[in-house]
Amino acid sequence: MQREELFRKISMENDRKMVLLVLDGLGGLPVNGKTELETAHTPNLDLLAAESELGLSHPIAPGITPGSGPAHLSLFGYDPLKYEIGRGILEALGVGIAVESRSVAVRGNFATLANGVITDRRAGRIPTAQNREIVALLSERIKMIDDAEVRLYSGEEHRFVLVLTADGLSDQLTDADPEATGLPLKYAQAKNEQAAKTARIVNRFIDRLTSELAGQLPANTCLLRGFAKYPAIPSMGELFKLKAAAIAVYPMYKGLAQLVGMEILETGRSIQDQAATLKQHYADFDFFFLHVKKTDSYGEDGDFAHKVAVIEEFDHWLPEILELTPDVLVVTGDHSTPALMKGHSWHPNPVLLKSAFQRIMPAGRRTPGRAAVVAQRSKFCETACARGVLGHFNALDVLPLMMANALKLKKYGA
Amino acid sequence: MQREELFRKISMENDRKMVLLVLDGLGGLPVNGKTELETAHTPNLDLLAAESELGLSHPIAPGITPGSGPAHLSLFGYDPLKYEIGRGILEALGVGIAVESRSVAVRGNFATLANGVITDRRAGRIPTAQNREIVALLSERIKMIDDAEVRLYSGEEHRFVLVLTADGLSDQLTDADPEATGLPLKYAQAKNEQAAKTARIVNRFIDRLTSELAGQLPANTCLLRGFAKYPAIPSMGELFKLKAAAIAVYPMYKGLAQLVGMEILETGRSIQDQAATLKQHYADFDFFFLHVKKTDSYGEDGDFAHKVAVIEEFDHWLPEILELTPDVLVVTGDHSTPALMKGHSWHPNPVLLKSAFQRIMPAGRRTPGRAAVVAQRSKFCETACARGVLGHFNALDVLPLMMANALKLKKYGA
Repeated sequence: MQREELFRKISMENDRKMVLLVLDGLGGLPVNGKTELETAHTPNLDLLAAESELGLSHPIAPGITPGSGPAHLSLFGYDPLKYEIGRGILEALGVGIAVESRSVAVRGNFATLANGVITDRRAGRIPTAQNREIVALLSERIKMIDDAEVRLYSGEEHRFVLVLTADGLSDQLTDADPEATGLPLKYAQAKNEQAAKTARIVNRFIDRLTSELAGQLPANTCLLRGFAKYPAIPSMGELFKLKAAAIAVYPMYKGLAQLVGMEILETGRSIQDQAATLKQHYADFDFFFLHVKKTDSYGEDGDFAHKVAVIEEFDHWLPEILELTPDVLVVTGDHSTPALMKGHSWHPNPVLLKSAFQRIMPAGRRTPGRAAVVAQRSKFCETACARGVLGHFNALDVLPLMMANALKLKKYGA
Repeated sequence: MQREELFRKISMENDRKMVLLVLDGLGGLPVNGKTELETAHTPNLDLLAAESELGLSHPIAPGITPGSGPAHLSLFGYDPLKYEIGRGILEALGVGIAVESRSVAVRGNFATLANGVITDRRAGRIPTAQNREIVALLSERIKMIDDAEVRLYSGEEHRFVLVLTADGLSDQLTDADPEATGLPLKYAQAKNEQAAKTARIVNRFIDRLTSELAGQLPANTCLLRGFAKYPAIPSMGELFKLKAAAIAVYPMYKGLAQLVGMEILETGRSIQDQAATLKQHYADFDFFFLHVKKTDSYGEDGDFAHKVAVIEEFDHWLPEILELTPDVLVVTGDHSTPALMKGHSWHPNPVLLKSAFQRIMPAGRRTPGRAAVVAQRSKFCETACARGVLGHFNALDVLPLMMANALKLKKYGA
């Protein structure tokens, strides 16, 4: 039996509530002897850790550094090597574009064409405001190509996203990008027969855009990369029988949550706002994904101190969430983003799981003999998690573990 | 996406150096309370362990005892359940025979035929010197059968290896071995249509050999077992973009390394020689596999004390290697060979990994708060590894972890 078939078969609904708190890029590496998590003053997390099961999870596999897309799919219970999310779709999700299953999304650059060759692949990194003006103009003038609806969205500087929607579109196209300056415009090529129609539409779009922008230097043509269809992915409702909601601030995470069928809850920008949103909708769903972005952002910047501060801010508001006493609570990251590395890394995620069915004694029932053991674990950090009772496992198993602890998985076999 | 497709996609070259030090059969079991590794006086390894990530790796899967072939494939990053190396090929590698992709290799026994039946399947275990004489004679007389080139190589006593090379050969043949005395010569049978040609050639070889050796008792015929083609396996260059070199003494390990595209470096027989070879070629490759055989040999003999002595010898020369300050260093075994069991076992391998991106602080940067933790880890042994931050993982993930730490793996997805 395949994994997904198993979950379709054994998952079941009940009233128990599960809360998945994801601090993006949470895991780190030591600087002056301690990781970000070890450095942060986190009395609430530490108290919780002493009463929870701890472990480490690999987002994809040992040694593999994931992007946010695959890392979140894994946390949501979807094999990220099975469901690849194309660059164009991620970009669309990132700017908050709703994409439907018939659509193809692709990343665009405005570029400079002179004397028949591309002289700047980024059109001199035009200001974002100028980009918006150009996109507004083009949106007015290019609404359809053949039977395909054309939608354009501004990104930062020279970047935009193109979404084509029609029946029978394919993403099996080569990039329309010469990849170097001094070369002529490059058109997309169909990789197979089924993609011929899409290639024709895409190349007509390039010609139309270039003709509309004639003379408008430096942005007078475009390059298109990363054609991607919206992946056909079963919803969390279908696969796990969950009524799931997402409380996220950044568009890409809302998009990823939407991709697996979560309802996106309106929320404010602070962790306090997000906790309030969780409280407000607590009765309406049985699975909540709450996403904190800034741990990752500061990690990417190499800003150890601010990453520590976001962890501390999260710790400060944690009691608001604990007050709801969810049946199963997980605190984890999607991947590590050590400030030391200024980027995502392969190091496994710290995982904390609290439920009524755990192998660690809650503090209230602590016995004298166990005091030392508990004391050793009373910090939520990479080192404690490396030695935790959950061991080291794949992040793909986080959701099944949560569901098991929420008694939402029936026995397999008799 | 399949595992290999992933690595083809995300692996990349850079200047960082990786060194994989394999002590064959390193892991052990306690005798008088301590394993071989725990008994050995290893000040250099222990110092290194205090500054490294530790863990345990399963060569194949928990409970599975591997041969050297699959155990090494796993360490080289190749799934040993996907790439099966036939017995004939391993035998050929073991006696240092270069085999090409068109060849079929097979193990042979000289045997005794009398009154139409096999009376001794090992020809009275003839002396190796006599074997060499017979093989020299046959090599002179049987050079081709049909379009197949015939090569014969002496093994110990009654054993030899036959390598046939021609286009269109197959290893899908049943063994040419009656498996008991008192039965007539048995010919190989093709398991499918494609193997018919090979079966014809093999059986003509048996007849030719039997006719050449007529009257030469006790070695007057042969049995052939374990037909095997050279496995089609992508090189480490193709799959991982590595320029890899092997520093091994025993033919089988050189053969295994060659199988995955490593360059085999000439070296002497001692660990000191091997360390010198590593130094000498350090500039020319980005991955080095250095293989120490005798830990396994003494383990197989049940010779606990000598296995300990080899570990101590390795420890003595380790600083020569550390002096090179490789970007990523791993010390591990391919499988366990507890002297107590006088053979390979399923117990996972101790693994030590040192890099700049580890979650354990190097001693120089050790802080008072972490001293206790580090002290706990300051012995390289099975027990410390069982509690190490790397956890328990599959040996197939050793190479990806090394590559990650050498920053040779790009991010998967965005």
